[in-house]
This record gives sequence, structure tokens and C-alpha cells, in this order.
Amino acid sequence: MKNTEIINIRLCDENTSVIILDQTLLPNDTVYIKLNSAEALFEAIYTLRVRGAPAIGIFAAYALYVLARQISSTNYEDFKTEVSKLSAYLNSSRPTAVNLGAQLNRMEKLVGSCAGQDIKQTLCAMKEEADKIYNEDVEMCRAISEHGLSLIQDGYGIMTQCNAGPVATSKYGTALGPILLGHERGIRQHAYICETRPLLQGSRLTAYELKKAGVDCTLICDNMASFVMNEGKVNAVFAGCDRIARNGDTANKIGTSGLAILAKHYGIPFYIFGPSTTIDMESATGADIEIELRKPEEIKEMFFTKPMAPADINCYNPAFDVTSSSLITAIITEKGIFKPKENNSPIF
Amino acid sequence: MKNTEIINIRLCDENTSVIILDQTLLPNDTVYIKLNSAEALFEAIYTLRVRGAPAIGIFAAYALYVLARQISSTNYEDFKTEVSKLSAYLNSSRPTAVNLGAQLNRMEKLVGSCAGQDIKQTLCAMKEEADKIYNEDVEMCRAISEHGLSLIQDGYGIMTQCNAGPVATSKYGTALGPILLGHERGIRQHAYICETRPLLQGSRLTAYELKKAGVDCTLICDNMASFVMNEGKVNAVFAGCDRIARNGDTANKIGTSGLAILAKHYGIPFYIFGPSTTIDMESATGADIEIELRKPEEIKEMFFTKPMAPADINCYNPAFDVTSSSLITAIITEKGIFKPKENNSPIF
Repeated sequence: MKNTEIINIRLCDENTSVIILDQTLLPNDTVYIKLNSAEALFEAIYTLRVRGAPAIGIFAAYALYVLARQISSTNYEDFKTEVSKLSAYLNSSRPTAVNLGAQLNRMEKLVGSCAGQDIKQTLCAMKEEADKIYNEDVEMCRAISEHGLSLIQDGYGIMTQCNAGPVATSKYGTALGPILLGHERGIRQHAYICETRPLLQGSRLTAYELKKAGVDCTLICDNMASFVMNEGKVNAVFAGCDRIARNGDTANKIGTSGLAILAKHYGIPFYIFGPSTTIDMESATGADIEIELRKPEEIKEMFFTKPMAPADINCYNPAFDVTSSSLITAIITEKGIFKPKENNSPIF
Repeated sequence: MKNTEIINIRLCDENTSVIILDQTLLPNDTVYIKLNSAEALFEAIYTLRVRGAPAIGIFAAYALYVLARQISSTNYEDFKTEVSKLSAYLNSSRPTAVNLGAQLNRMEKLVGSCAGQDIKQTLCAMKEEADKIYNEDVEMCRAISEHGLSLIQDGYGIMTQCNAGPVATSKYGTALGPILLGHERGIRQHAYICETRPLLQGSRLTAYELKKAGVDCTLICDNMASFVMNEGKVNAVFAGCDRIARNGDTANKIGTSGLAILAKHYGIPFYIFGPSTTIDMESATGADIEIELRKPEEIKEMFFTKPMAPADINCYNPAFDVTSSSLITAIITEKGIFKPKENNSPIF
């Protein structure tokens, strides 16, 4: 699988800073920022400059390595204590993201296994571990993309939502991976991107990534999904995930369950993509998954003063849709209450 | 039914201007504007300062009367010709709105029936006809509200979308009418308002109207409807309509069909409200209804620089939702493709 040209997270040449693509400025500005202070690295996660569970995990591992290099102590025990403090600080930036804590733990464990080695060797091992986390994520995305590609046929329309693409991971993404891979292999497809209110990850990030890769795509508002499906344009729905219960119930960005119900109604297959680390063996069903409630200002106020989508993105903007009478319980006019008939015959 | 205190459209005391509530400035500013030139009256419809099919029809009738008063000719035939020209001009402001043409035609017919009377008498008859159009709309809304109220039980949660309230009509609205009437009669209810992208008529107009009337309500993004329904908070969905086919298939604001599918999935009744003039006897089914496609900028760019909802509106902002495994065709991880089991047992 080819590089999609979006390198989300990497170390600078001297290993003194982490360089990331600032996701808060997309799609208007492609800006890479260099971070090396604890405060700046913390802030990048907290303000979503880096987001997407796998991406946050990778970033935190590199961040801990960069900060460990700045520890002045040459005593192993002091060094280890300092690393633990830095890890706890980074971990507090977004307490709900599972990958963040998991990858920081992995880095701390590595440091714990380095007793007896000098600090230089330990730092070297830390860089290797962070690279390993990165490379494992690349492999995970590549494998998901290959599995997912087996579900796409030539000419498919694929609806997607939120962002589970390259910027949310190391490189290829999860739900977007098969689409990007299919594009590389010359499979004709058209992606329908739901904008994903309130934070518009669909229009800001997914539209940016698919346009950059050259995939045919169209941006719609979330409430247009039924209309597009009804037109027969969608052959499959691809979505990412944040937590999967053991029976397959899946927590993902708000709106996913609605798309799944629409897909079922229209007879369209609905697929969830994610690393196996997303499976929560402690949750028997979705009822065990707690849902984060966010602040009202995201709905009431508009933070995006610049355009919210790539300037050249294709949009589809139907102002109305038609609701089949089979879905309507009754129609109320000033003359009374009228119930549609099952045989589709006139009711007026 | 009490006045909701929103007087959307009226003549000024001297009958020389039409005064309207400028809907483009809601919910931030409640501004009434006085219009009396042909250009200003045309522009008010064109730029949606007045919107909602019934409201546009009423406005056009008053607008034609105000303009007719400015005709200098005292000859009936010349007067009639002038009125026709003005009517055609106003009608061209929004060619798709059915009520606009229908009410202008009605006013022209009235003028046609006044042959032999002097201009003063004709103007007097025109004002009476416009008042009649207004009053008929009030009666229509009142009757729909009473019929609709019979569908509401104490403690109901009612989901609504777009705007079919007082500002879209003469006074009480269609889909919002029963909720406002129920509130007056002391019925406890809670309205869930879908914001309605791209133009946010739900957050800008419906939220404004329900807050003003004191109805308990909560604003959500369109993609949160499934989540709220799944929580058991919604007992009925109320929607307006733009055109109804003879079998009951109904064209309404984009997103309505999706809400109807979700409602069916969750076993929630789904009701359409509108004047009987919305029924199109020429359309056998929804397949005969043409859908307006609008410009992409509405999706890509954000025109609302001020807050898009009343400052004190209650919002519900879940960041994730859970999709039942029964709706998922397969889950793809790096380890392969897993299909949920029908008996809800573990798949991992």
C-alpha cells in the first residue's frame, strides 16, 4: 500500500521534537508543528491538534521519549521516577482515550525492564519501542485495509462518517483504509461523506484526506443520508469504532447507530472497522459502555469561521426529501386525521 | 388558543407598509421591518426574511395590496393591468413556493371581480381579501393544533425538525401548533428539536419559538435523533410538509424521511402536519414530486457568525452512540472479518 502522503506524526531528525500535522487547522491550512516541551505536547492532545485513538497513542509514546531525553539525572531510579511523572502528566490530557494510557503504560514497562542499563541505552530502547508502536499501527491499518477491500466491488458507493482515516492513525486509517487501498488498485468507487455535526470531522478531515488521495467523493449533511441511500447510490456503509463489546455492539461517533438503522431499512450492508485493541472484553454488550456528554456550545455556536471543507469538494444539497406513506402513522390537516393505506391507494 | 406573542406579518396602522419579523436575524435579534417598495417586498421573500409556505402566501397578499395603493391611475382597466404586473413581479421572487402563486392569483381574481367599482372600493376589497387569507390561515392552524393535540398525552417527549411554527404561518404553526396549544392547556411535554442542517431552521427558529412560549425543550444535532429515541425519550415525531401526494407520500425538509425510518425502528408514531392546500391531487405518489437541489456553499461554508440558537436553550450533546450488533453486517479488525451472532452471544 502506497504512502498517502499524509505523515501525521514523526520525530524530527535530531529526535528532539515530535512533529505533527495540526488537525485543528485542516482543511484550510496544512501546518506541521514541532513540539518538545511537556506543556506543548500535553496541549496538542488536549486541544485535538492530534486526535484519533491510535494516533494519540503513537504521539504519546514519542512524546514520552522526547521528554525523557531532557531528564538531567544519570541515575536509573531517578530517571525512571521522572519518566513516570511525565507519563502521568501526558495521560491526564484526555482521560477517556484508551490508547493514550495503554501506550504510555507500555513505554513505562519498557523503562522498567531497563534496570542496569545506562540512560543512553534506555533512551535508545524507548525510541525503538515508540517506533514499534508506530509500525504495529501501520501493519494493523494495512491488514484492516486488505480485509476491508474484499468487501468492495467495482463501482461501489460507500458512505462514511466522522474520521477513521490516515490522520486518526499512523498512516492508512481503519474505515477509510479499504477505500484508499481500493483507489490505489484502480477500483472505481464513490465515497459519500457525512459531515458529522457538531465538530465536522467528516467535512474537515475525511473530505480533506479523500480529496488529497484523489478518491471520488461527495460531502453531505448528516440528515441527507436517507435521501442518498434511497437513490440507490450507497452499496455499503463503513464506520470506525471507539469501543466494541463482546457481542459486537459498537460505540462510535454520534450518528453511527442512525446510519446503521437507515442501512438496514434500505438493505445496505453496514461494516465497522477497528483494531482488535478496541474490543473491550469487560463489556458483554453495549449497555456496559458509558457515553461521553460534551458541552452545549458545540451545538449552539459555530467555531469554524473559515470554510469547513476543502474548497473543491463536491457537495450534494437536496433541500427536501420524500417520506414514504408506509412510514407515516397519520397526516393531520385542518380537516382531520388521515391514515395512509397499506395498499398505497389514495387517502384524499 | 392564546396569541403566542409572535406577530409575523401585519399591515402598519396607515395600511401603507407591511411589517414583518425579519427571520434572517433570529434568534439573536428580534427586528421588525417596514416594507413598502416593490423591490423591498420582493427582496424579503427572496432572501427568506419571510419564509414558510403559508407565511409567504399571506405576506404576498398584503404586499400586493400595499403596492396597489401606490398605483396613480384612476382607470379600472389600467389599475387591473398594473396589479397583474406587480403580482407577476412578486411571484417571481420564489418560483417553487406553491402558496405564493396561489394567494397572488386569488388577489388578482378579486380585482377582476371588481369591474365597475371605483379604485377606492377595489382597494378596500383587496384589504378585506388579504385579511381573509390571514384569518383563514389562523383558523387552519387552530384546527390542526386541536386535531394534533388529541395525539399528545401528558408527559410526552416530541421530536421535531425544521420549522413549522408561528413564524412559518400566520400565528400558531402546523407541526408546532399542537405543542404550543398543549403547553397553554397545561399538558407536560418536552420537545426535542433537531437543528436541521444546512440552514439550521430548527436551532434558529423552532428553538426561538418554543423558548419564547416557555415550552420545555432540548436542542440536538440531526445525527443525535437515534440516540435520543433509543433512550426512550421520544413518544412521537411531529413534522410539517411541503407537498403531499394522494397516497400520503410527503415531501418535507431534508432529513424527514430519515427520522421516519428511525421512528419506525424504535416503534414511535410519526405524524405529518399541514394545511389541506398542501395535498397535490396531481401527484399519485412521492415519485411525482421534484426535489430542489441547492448550492454547495450552504454545506461547505458557515454563514452564521453569531450564535445559531437562543443563548439559554438546553442542549444535549452525546459524543458517541452505541450501534446494536443486530444492525452490523460485520466487524473488521486486523485479525479478520467477524459476524455478530443472532443470539447476541460473544463473537470475540
